Amino acid sequence: MDEHAALIRSRFCEIRQHSEALCEGLDVEDLCLQGMADTSPLKWHLAHTTWFFETFILKPFARHYQPYNERFEYLFNSYYNAVGRQYPRPLRHMLSRPTVTEVLAYRAAVDEAVQALLDVPSAPEQSEIRHRLVLGLNHEQQHQELMLTDLKYCLSLNPLQPVYNHAELPTSGAGGLTFSEFEGGDCELGMNQVDPARITPGSFSFDNEGPRHRSWLAPFAVADRPVNNGEFIEFVEAGGYRSPQWWHSDGWAAVQTEQWQMPLYWQREGQRYYAFTLHGYLEVDPAAPVCHVSLYEALAFAAWRGLRLCREGEWEHVASGVKPDGNLWRRNCQHPTSDRAESGMRQLYGDVWEWTQSAYSPYPGYRPQAGALGEYNGKFMLNQMVLRGGSVATPPGHIRATYRNFFYPADRWQFSGIRLAQDL
Amino acid sequence: MDEHAALIRSRFCEIRQHSEALCEGLDVEDLCLQGMADTSPLKWHLAHTTWFFETFILKPFARHYQPYNERFEYLFNSYYNAVGRQYPRPLRHMLSRPTVTEVLAYRAAVDEAVQALLDVPSAPEQSEIRHRLVLGLNHEQQHQELMLTDLKYCLSLNPLQPVYNHAELPTSGAGGLTFSEFEGGDCELGMNQVDPARITPGSFSFDNEGPRHRSWLAPFAVADRPVNNGEFIEFVEAGGYRSPQWWHSDGWAAVQTEQWQMPLYWQREGQRYYAFTLHGYLEVDPAAPVCHVSLYEALAFAAWRGLRLCREGEWEHVASGVKPDGNLWRRNCQHPTSDRAESGMRQLYGDVWEWTQSAYSPYPGYRPQAGALGEYNGKFMLNQMVLRGGSVATPPGHIRATYRNFFYPADRWQFSGIRLAQDL
Amino acid sequence: MDEHAALIRSRFCEIRQHSEALCEGLDVEDLCLQGMADTSPLKWHLAHTTWFFETFILKPFARHYQPYNERFEYLFNSYYNAVGRQYPRPLRHMLSRPTVTEVLAYRAAVDEAVQALLDVPSAPEQSEIRHRLVLGLNHEQQHQELMLTDLKYCLSLNPLQPVYNHAELPTSGAGGLTFSEFEGGDCELGMNQVDPARITPGSFSFDNEGPRHRSWLAPFAVADRPVNNGEFIEFVEAGGYRSPQWWHSDGWAAVQTEQWQMPLYWQREGQRYYAFTLHGYLEVDPAAPVCHVSLYEALAFAAWRGLRLCREGEWEHVASGVKPDGNLWRRNCQHPTSDRAESGMRQLYGDVWEWTQSAYSPYPGYRPQAGALGEYNGKFMLNQMVLRGGSVATPPGHIRATYRNFFYPADRWQFSGIRLAQDL
Amino acid sequence: MDEHAALIRSRFCEIRQHSEALCEGLDVEDLCLQGMADTSPLKWHLAHTTWFFETFILKPFARHYQPYNERFEYLFNSYYNAVGRQYPRPLRHMLSRPTVTEVLAYRAAVDEAVQALLDVPSAPEQSEIRHRLVLGLNHEQQHQELMLTDLKYCLSLNPLQPVYNHAELPTSGAGGLTFSEFEGGDCELGMNQVDPARITPGSFSFDNEGPRHRSWLAPFAVADRPVNNGEFIEFVEAGGYRSPQWWHSDGWAAVQTEQWQMPLYWQREGQRYYAFTLHGYLEVDPAAPVCHVSLYEALAFAAWRGLRLCREGEWEHVASGVKPDGNLWRRNCQHPTSDRAESGMRQLYGDVWEWTQSAYSPYPGYRPQAGALGEYNGKFMLNQMVLRGGSVATPPGHIRATYRNFFYPADRWQFSGIRLAQDL
Repeated sequence: MDEHAALIRSRFCEIRQHSEALCEGLDVEDLCLQGMADTSPLKWHLAHTTWFFETFILKPFARHYQPYNERFEYLFNSYYNAVGRQYPRPLRHMLSRPTVTEVLAYRAAVDEAVQALLDVPSAPEQSEIRHRLVLGLNHEQQHQELMLTDLKYCLSLNPLQPVYNHAELPTSGAGGLTFSEFEGGDCELGMNQVDPARITPGSFSFDNEGPRHRSWLAPFAVADRPVNNGEFIEFVEAGGYRSPQWWHSDGWAAVQTEQWQMPLYWQREGQRYYAFTLHGYLEVDPAAPVCHVSLYEALAFAAWRGLRLCREGEWEHVASGVKPDGNLWRRNCQHPTSDRAESGMRQLYGDVWEWTQSAYSPYPGYRPQAGALGEYNGKFMLNQMVLRGGSVATPPGHIRATYRNFFYPADRWQFSGIRLAQDL
Repeated sequence: MDEHAALIRSRFCEIRQHSEALCEGLDVEDLCLQGMADTSPLKWHLAHTTWFFETFILKPFARHYQPYNERFEYLFNSYYNAVGRQYPRPLRHMLSRPTVTEVLAYRAAVDEAVQALLDVPSAPEQSEIRHRLVLGLNHEQQHQELMLTDLKYCLSLNPLQPVYNHAELPTSGAGGLTFSEFEGGDCELGMNQVDPARITPGSFSFDNEGPRHRSWLAPFAVADRPVNNGEFIEFVEAGGYRSPQWWHSDGWAAVQTEQWQMPLYWQREGQRYYAFTLHGYLEVDPAAPVCHVSLYEALAFAAWRGLRLCREGEWEHVASGVKPDGNLWRRNCQHPTSDRAESGMRQLYGDVWEWTQSAYSPYPGYRPQAGALGEYNGKFMLNQMVLRGGSVATPPGHIRATYRNFFYPADRWQFSGIRLAQDL
Repeated sequence: MDEHAALIRSRFCEIRQHSEALCEGLDVEDLCLQGMADTSPLKWHLAHTTWFFETFILKPFARHYQPYNERFEYLFNSYYNAVGRQYPRPLRHMLSRPTVTEVLAYRAAVDEAVQALLDVPSAPEQSEIRHRLVLGLNHEQQHQELMLTDLKYCLSLNPLQPVYNHAELPTSGAGGLTFSEFEGGDCELGMNQVDPARITPGSFSFDNEGPRHRSWLAPFAVADRPVNNGEFIEFVEAGGYRSPQWWHSDGWAAVQTEQWQMPLYWQREGQRYYAFTLHGYLEVDPAAPVCHVSLYEALAFAAWRGLRLCREGEWEHVASGVKPDGNLWRRNCQHPTSDRAESGMRQLYGDVWEWTQSAYSPYPGYRPQAGALGEYNGKFMLNQMVLRGGSVATPPGHIRATYRNFFYPADRWQFSGIRLAQDL
Repeated sequence: MDEHAALIRSRFCEIRQHSEALCEGLDVEDLCLQGMADTSPLKWHLAHTTWFFETFILKPFARHYQPYNERFEYLFNSYYNAVGRQYPRPLRHMLSRPTVTEVLAYRAAVDEAVQALLDVPSAPEQSEIRHRLVLGLNHEQQHQELMLTDLKYCLSLNPLQPVYNHAELPTSGAGGLTFSEFEGGDCELGMNQVDPARITPGSFSFDNEGPRHRSWLAPFAVADRPVNNGEFIEFVEAGGYRSPQWWHSDGWAAVQTEQWQMPLYWQREGQRYYAFTLHGYLEVDPAAPVCHVSLYEALAFAAWRGLRLCREGEWEHVASGVKPDGNLWRRNCQHPTSDRAESGMRQLYGDVWEWTQSAYSPYPGYRPQAGALGEYNGKFMLNQMVLRGGSVATPPGHIRATYRNFFYPADRWQFSGIRLAQDL
């Protein structure tokens, strides 16, 4: 086995194992929850990520492979129309069978078959297999983040306020907010995908990050850290949620329809603010980045401050020289925290995904790959907005400067926050 | 301990145990399903029926009783506004905690406390306690029926078609349908509640069955058995679901909105009809009573046959001399079957609840009891329609001639069927 | 021409003319409003009532009759599936064509053709024609009431608060509320339809009023007048709309969903109550009957007073000896007023329709007529509740003791009020 | 009066008059229709455009001006939260009062007061007044287009298929579709607003068109004419509406929910396609541009052809050298037609608005103006997509290369079409 193959195999075991590790401490009942149509039961995530390997690697490439269960093709297909019809998303919580135990057995069987396939030396399709394998691993990492955000949403609906992680959260004082200026001008953005034959888990990028292309940026300034809870509380207390002038039209409609008064998971008790977190029901830390805000709220906050959000090109330009490190997923911490750094462009990576004011559109020259895998990213390039930088729920190694995450402007259940910017 | 007390205690153990026995063979995941707002997870039924004893007996009457968990009052209150607010019904499936194990512990603790209370000799409140205990047992029996119908609905949404009961269903030939004539005239209907001091599980009736009152019935005839599947298939194949003339206005609207084409759980494959049952996915037995039809469908079928349904007074008049026995819940059978009897008024009790054309209204002189228990029946006496006779999911001993069940005209997930009638 | 024919012709002219007279003082724009799916534009009522005569009399019976406009069959059919499909009810306001002028021309043409048909002496079908003609006139009178209630609902949505009738409303002091007792017992209820050959506008009844049948009434007492606004304000101010204990389950759901706080059209300004009426925006007269309450509110009010509503048989029993006279439609008054009578069973007829606690069901022996006209009443005998006695919007001569009106329990836009009753 | 003032006054009369001229041949009833929440009655447009002048010019600048009717501020405010609350948009059809006659009187009164204000020589606020006046005229022209599209939508719901314009539509053969190539590179896009003191109707631009800014375009090619009906029919007949692979995820959801099968207003009869137009119900002309397609359909069509839509910068780059002329509004034609030109970049302006694949976002440096007029464009810069080039319903003189129109991706009732592009 070549070095690449060994690396891929090692990452495969590690990442597959991590999904199951995320379920430790939870009860079977917890793994079956679906709080809204946008979320899926953890059990479903465990099965779907397995289905991905089975469907896109084992079925086409493993000789004599017998599908583990013919019905799973329908049950665990998320949205790949080219593969076939899908069990209705809002009903995923109705799938009591296969049970958790059965899903874990499905995982084990597919893992074994995938590893057997990796052992076959230099099959002519090895480069395609490797490409899909690395894609599958990155796919599974995306679902690892969703497992945490979906779980959080679901547990929050239980008045018993279950605690997922009993570790204590670190706190520290909030530094001031300053702006760094950038000249902009001609620049190159995005990243081309590497040749599948040479792919490694570390060199991977999604197709939506490319092709690398030229752009022009006017001069701008960017805040050196995300907006924190203390600053956001000022907006709340200044009547921000009752003042249409700060809001986009659709945002104001959402405020009224959904009766938003503060970020998701917050409660006011007297003069204090509390939030449901994966670490329990805690008082809001003013120094930590605000999270679980929609883009509507992010834009309203920025307007109230006379500022704006980054465009995604600006964000990438700033981040391109910064090592993709920060408060990403760690065993002891699944909540954004305040930063200990004294200066520099802080918390670009980790803690909270940062809403940009850029629509999620194809880059010049982008074309989705043919076949079912072309549905991975391309068909979502409409109506959604770009977030950058990863969060406290993002697996380490999964984020980079060119990474484009995307959600609808009203979505709040991700670890989504705010970084301010302005024109110069 | 007196004889009544011994009897009550024995029934208490038996009925409480039966609820748990219904869950045998199911996985934890199955107990957490909620397929629509009208259904509840089996786990919730197990907890709510326990809450009923805790709330209405232990809290008011057991000295020094400490609530098992203060939050359960909110979580497991179904609809008793006088007790307090309720966790939203459509979200019951979100309560992964308490877990199944924890709910069973809750059941055990309450059972123990209730039995301890029964041991206290001749407390002045004993007659009220007994009354509530017997009410609580009847309440639990109602939930036992719902556990089966809710479970069936939930499992039916799973393409894997889980089988709850592996026993084989009996079949036999269908007898012809004949009508028995009744003179009617002055009659007495309904049943007064017995003195709480003398109550036994066998003498109980719900408040909505009384007071006993006079009524007048014009001459009528009633079919000697429920409409069977074979007869209903004729209606389906005669275009019954495409012909507005047979339907009430609201029924026709439901047909179009819900796209009904046959009873709930049925599928047509070629020329044959199959149905999802608690015994698996089976071909429809033409000789067995049709079930899982709404009142709209029952009325349309009757209109197509130039007939009508019973009024509830007629049904009770017919049933008052018949022993309340039939295909009620049995370990080996949770699906209506054809009857072996050759003659007589067949299957009045058991197999399927029979829709009547009577609105569920208070009888003359009815007044709901004061306090929270007055909410048990009274506040539902509007918009719902009466069904009579019990079904294959009704616990034996729980049905009688005066028993009034009630559902909305569009409801189909109960074991609800059709008995025809006509004017003379 | 015989005497009956002359009478029918005279009533035909009178009633047809009255529909148009109701539109006097309104602008073309007012005639086109549709405030919700349950209401129709006045222009549509004018056309539909004409369509009724064309469809059920001219087309089948007038020789060589050419349909006025083939498309009208689809546009102005309300709900007769046997006639054909119907233009969607919620979109009736979209029919700018035919214009008001064109609809009036349609009316004139149909009126002329109907009268020509009446001139033909002793046609063999004359008795059927007469029957349908009298039915058509009663149908038009029903729409005359709807024209006023629909108009009121529509105008109420306009912040300019248009005034339909500038006449001043009479007021007088409120008398006390006393109860009259009735023995009940065996009685006959309902009314058989007269032989079509002998029908006169005065002897008509709808098929749903019959057949006359025997019933048995337990002793009861009935209030001598409807609940008035002053009494209802007490309920409002006692927190009636915030107290679930007075409400049926579905009623309480409606209170919360619809955010009801007082009767439809009411506004509180400081300590006073005002209401939008067809006579303008006026302070609520405490002595006048409360109106525009749903059955849910009527039942909650009665429960709060420890009383109940009449059953329809009770109401009819009381009314059967009373001349059907009262504050029905008059040129100068389209709002319920307080009564000047000092004693007796006051305001049984007119002012407000009185909700009963009886579901709208077929009487024993009722069978709808064959064909399209059988859809007139029969298919609505489910989910709706009976109101009795007519209102200030009911044309004089259109009401009688046996008359059964019916609406859904949540409906509030009719002139619907409350008469209390109790068991003895 | 200076020359500018004279010009503005002349345009004022002309444009105000044009709105009323659009209503010629319609009945009062037609002016009151509202077919869905997105459309408004023509009467409302007539009043709202008048309200704009009254609110933003007369109230702040005309001395001693008395509001025409205090209530109109609420009734005819569209979405300016800074002005106050608004009558609910979906209920605009409920405003039978003010009548059409009253609205025309309102228009006359405001027109008179505005012209009187223009007579006042060199008031210090004249430049702001002029700016707002020109804005108000451009605003009214936007509503003129909406009057036609809203009217079309409303009339289309009437089975009588009313004809608005009896003129015959020109037809001609369809030319082939060729692509012109553009190098792109550095370019300047957008347009700065002129100094209000120097504004003329001809030099106006909306704030959303600026500021003028630098951008970079990769090489691209653009089709020389819009996609025509013949080409779109091929897509329909190739099963385009049944093939998820061509659609964005949200687009495919819309196809299924809305059951789209072809463009809005089309019907298939046998092998032929017909469309409801403002000129009546006509067979679809294969050579004319397809219109009334959503962005979803435009993108799916492009994907099926292996092509894409323009980005808005590309479109503007192409159009910047082209005179803004074409099939804009003409008395005899309110439907897109085929082009007579043989070559060149055809039909860039007029006929159909061309969907771009660009989200409607603020240009770099854009800041909405302070106060209520800042709500004109800014708060809509989210969730909507840019269209370019004007249509057959756009008033001549109202379109230019930098003009940005915007609608939601699912909107179909505008004259919206497709121009294809591709990467080079």
